[in-house]
Amino acid sequence: MKRKTDERPTRALRGRAGRMQGGRGSGRASTGAVRLWGHHAVEAALKNPERNHRKLWATREGVAALDGELPANFPVEYAQGADLARLVARDAPHQGLVLECDALEDVFLGDVLDGDPARPIVVLDQVTDPHNVGAILRSAAAFGAVALVTQDRHSPPESGTLAKSASGALEVVPWVRVVNLARALEEIAEAGYWRIGLDGTAPLTIAEALPNGPVALVLGSEGDGLRHNITQHCDALARLPMTGAIESLNVSNAAAIALYAAAARELPEE
Amino acid sequence: MKRKTDERPTRALRGRAGRMQGGRGSGRASTGAVRLWGHHAVEAALKNPERNHRKLWATREGVAALDGELPANFPVEYAQGADLARLVARDAPHQGLVLECDALEDVFLGDVLDGDPARPIVVLDQVTDPHNVGAILRSAAAFGAVALVTQDRHSPPESGTLAKSASGALEVVPWVRVVNLARALEEIAEAGYWRIGLDGTAPLTIAEALPNGPVALVLGSEGDGLRHNITQHCDALARLPMTGAIESLNVSNAAAIALYAAAARELPEE
Repeated sequence: MKRKTDERPTRALRGRAGRMQGGRGSGRASTGAVRLWGHHAVEAALKNPERNHRKLWATREGVAALDGELPANFPVEYAQGADLARLVARDAPHQGLVLECDALEDVFLGDVLDGDPARPIVVLDQVTDPHNVGAILRSAAAFGAVALVTQDRHSPPESGTLAKSASGALEVVPWVRVVNLARALEEIAEAGYWRIGLDGTAPLTIAEALPNGPVALVLGSEGDGLRHNITQHCDALARLPMTGAIESLNVSNAAAIALYAAAARELPEE
Repeated sequence: MKRKTDERPTRALRGRAGRMQGGRGSGRASTGAVRLWGHHAVEAALKNPERNHRKLWATREGVAALDGELPANFPVEYAQGADLARLVARDAPHQGLVLECDALEDVFLGDVLDGDPARPIVVLDQVTDPHNVGAILRSAAAFGAVALVTQDRHSPPESGTLAKSASGALEVVPWVRVVNLARALEEIAEAGYWRIGLDGTAPLTIAEALPNGPVALVLGSEGDGLRHNITQHCDALARLPMTGAIESLNVSNAAAIALYAAAARELPEE
């Protein structure tokens, strides 16, 4: 761990310094703000030029562990770990870093549909647990997915818990929130993607259903699966080849497997 | 949801009724007991003949939703959901069912090594988060793994949080806790298993490293990976074929992918 002697380091973390100062020690995020915590989540947010930062609360060890230095005049307040614990969710592992920042700007579906077969789209239908959505963003980043698409009304907001599970991926994978998921699936098909809905009762396995072109992987909630109207907007339904005693996987594990299966395909040479 | 009119239903859930009554309303588990909650976790524990049950606290809706009926004289106490909330971890989703029971009996490695190539072993080195270990048990059950092996000193105890994440798989997948993980890996090799350690820097991918015989999948913690001594006890190291912006997956997602890759192998006909 690097140690620094000055309170306001001066180089390398590229993000924009905040336009607003968070309510000092108030324990509550300012209006419209998101509070992120944990080393990977905060470091990625600091490096994201699209992220408008407001204020960083940190221990000296937390800042020293960052890859890069904070810009001059970055609004940082040094504190003890116990003080930081009061700024975040109960028992949240803040690792000495709590960043208040604006939520990311909206991303539009039309801006991400590049038709690259090596970069799948992940579509979630009514997956609401922030740990699961965060873990799915992390896997999406690891496998080079082009975007996550959710329905605004049935998905969790950007949050510290979600960002911690995403381990930095919230800053990396474009997250498209749409009003109408069926309409979004139509737009995805028009852009040349083959839409595969995961369904434990489907006759095809995921490996059998994958095309050798662009693909959108569509997953529903663990309890209810995909809604009927959403399966109607898929080109194929596919199951994971499970043989054992339990009929369903955690949805983030199912998404990771689907992303792996897509990455392990033989794609035609470009 | 089925409704029952009698307080003590009489058939079909097979578990042994408890030898002891839990401290009524004490909010604390009795000595040596484990408190499980949530529909899948409790239902699976009630159906597990190896599980010694002590007492069930439940809402009427929770019991009505169970698949099967409780044995006559099963020690059940009906309560309101808010009362159950006081028996479990903070904000735990108990779904109207809290079961106090004994921890499962120890399982020995020699008793599970059946050499079936279709049934991998999952070995965890210093994975301590109960959510992750629970999710890994769930995936292990879904893909028919023969056992989970952990080092006693570096793994979480059986707990309600772990059982909830496992969604019933804690009752299904034998969990072998060993004192010396390196020695256990030697025993696994002697039983004919090819031991593959997951390592993001390995030249081989998991698909390339998988044999067409019995396999043990060895995973380390997210931060540190496998300990050197453990990699020395693997026959091959392999990576997941990730292409994107994030260098590591959540360990339960990595385990799910490894289990899928093993299940998707072409195995020789028996």
